[in-house]
Amino acid sequence: MDKYISLAHGNGGRLMRELIDELFARCLASPGLDTQVDAAAVQIAAGDGELLVSTDGFTVQPLEYPGGNIGSLAVHGTVNDLAVAGAIPAVLTVNTFLEEGLEIATLERLLVSMGEAARAASVRIAAGDTKVVRRGEGSGVYFATTGLGTRDAGVDLGMQRIAIGDEVLVSGPVGDHGTAVMLARQAFGLRGELESDEACVLPLTRALLDLPGLRFMRDPTRGGLATVAHEIAMGTGHGVRLRETDVPVRDEVASVCKLLGYDPYYLACEGRVLAVVAAADAEEALARWQATPTGSGAQHIGTISDAAPRVILETMIGGERYLEELEDDPLPRIC
Amino acid sequence: MDKYISLAHGNGGRLMRELIDELFARCLASPGLDTQVDAAAVQIAAGDGELLVSTDGFTVQPLEYPGGNIGSLAVHGTVNDLAVAGAIPAVLTVNTFLEEGLEIATLERLLVSMGEAARAASVRIAAGDTKVVRRGEGSGVYFATTGLGTRDAGVDLGMQRIAIGDEVLVSGPVGDHGTAVMLARQAFGLRGELESDEACVLPLTRALLDLPGLRFMRDPTRGGLATVAHEIAMGTGHGVRLRETDVPVRDEVASVCKLLGYDPYYLACEGRVLAVVAAADAEEALARWQATPTGSGAQHIGTISDAAPRVILETMIGGERYLEELEDDPLPRIC
Repeated sequence: MDKYISLAHGNGGRLMRELIDELFARCLASPGLDTQVDAAAVQIAAGDGELLVSTDGFTVQPLEYPGGNIGSLAVHGTVNDLAVAGAIPAVLTVNTFLEEGLEIATLERLLVSMGEAARAASVRIAAGDTKVVRRGEGSGVYFATTGLGTRDAGVDLGMQRIAIGDEVLVSGPVGDHGTAVMLARQAFGLRGELESDEACVLPLTRALLDLPGLRFMRDPTRGGLATVAHEIAMGTGHGVRLRETDVPVRDEVASVCKLLGYDPYYLACEGRVLAVVAAADAEEALARWQATPTGSGAQHIGTISDAAPRVILETMIGGERYLEELEDDPLPRIC
Repeated sequence: MDKYISLAHGNGGRLMRELIDELFARCLASPGLDTQVDAAAVQIAAGDGELLVSTDGFTVQPLEYPGGNIGSLAVHGTVNDLAVAGAIPAVLTVNTFLEEGLEIATLERLLVSMGEAARAASVRIAAGDTKVVRRGEGSGVYFATTGLGTRDAGVDLGMQRIAIGDEVLVSGPVGDHGTAVMLARQAFGLRGELESDEACVLPLTRALLDLPGLRFMRDPTRGGLATVAHEIAMGTGHGVRLRETDVPVRDEVASVCKLLGYDPYYLACEGRVLAVVAAADAEEALARWQATPTGSGAQHIGTISDAAPRVILETMIGGERYLEELEDDPLPRIC
């Protein structure tokens, strides 16, 4: 096979067929993946439940960073969106936009990670498509993934279920992914050992699904914790009160953010869950999360209040400040 | 709203929310499209049949051309892949990759076309995601769409059903899309009135679904008619014999191709179907296609033969030549 992607890898002819059969199919091998069909039959048994669909695009730079890469991220991003909606993901489709000149060895590493992430999350890659764009019209690789999953009939989640007095929980430290990607860019001459929190959140979401007091879950990706809190305030008409002392932030994330003037609450996570839970079930939810492999740092971080629909942070020194809606982009291309 | 796309339209904050709510949701309005959820519930009743999934990416340049644009194409491409597999499309998801600096008025035209195409094909846009990439890392807009549809239990299509003696049909002139896009680029100083054949092929595919002799259908997009014929030869182990006198090619397409040294058999169509049908049902299939709005130019163009698995063209002057597999890209970024 060639060493670099050329436009002919996207033209529907021999080179493209070889790329699909020898690289994509091998790395993403799912039993029954047929690269010759226009549409693939998928067996999904929703039973009395619902079929859910979610889709996400991925443009992170650099393509590889400590703790993950755009290939595994493209699985986790969509799997996690299904998971926080209360679904069990089953099937994934993958769109790839390759830039002419990409090293094929790089693509292979990304696809190997993608395949591993899919197998670990028990999702089957059922269909894909690959396009090649000219040099200077992409940035290596963009992926888009679409996921299908099933949600049991008993699971009822959504902002409409959130009530005043509910507790807000987060499953671990925030801002790791955004900070790790920023450091990987070395854009500021900084380097660090921090890893992205990128992970499949299914163990976290499944742990809470049968809790009657579970109201709502979301993964704080683009825009971070503060943006999800805003969405809750706007979606419910209630206030969201967060306690700075309780929001977990790693020392390294706090240091880098302080140095560069970022607020970690607005930086992306890729393996965390924010949950709103009825006060009566909050202790139980926290205990369940803390018993999972990625939930040891879970915390109560705030409450839903009867104040106006804004996000208020109780600061460490006893004051209060509003967390405003994100206006300008602190850190583009983080996912 | 602003006049141009900026990076902040992709950051998960206010500008992004406004873009999604005021442009995407309005243009793509499907009843029940909820821009606030991570995953959308979809109601698809497959009954005794199967759920099918298909996905496709779109990078055509220019974004707009006579007969269509990348917005409508992104619907037709995926809808058609489901249709030729024998399915009835039901649900679509849309990924958008916007380049910083894109005029928002252009985006609006594309999204309006996308919405119209979806409604005309009776597919519901159930979920979407939008990313913004930096200037010089895209080319205006890339789309990826993923479609879900259902295929009745009685429908059995595939290359494994193709037998020696079967007839090959095409639903209309080939190479219109490729040629129209090439002319729209004005890359050769040529202009023409030719329009892309871009269309939803559901009326064509539905017309044949209950024919017992229907073996296989495919839409000849990237790589054109010759590439599909090759796929059939390789997939079945049989020869594919095409008759040059019977393959419909518009005069304008033939002239432009002759002038520039292209072979129209390798140029993309975006609204045609190639079908393989048992000889006994071929006349009936042709009559049904010719009775549809886009099938008036349908033709018998060849047969499946007991020769080696290659594609042979009987030329107009009575000779024979092999149609080889596509090696280099005659016309990149056509879809």
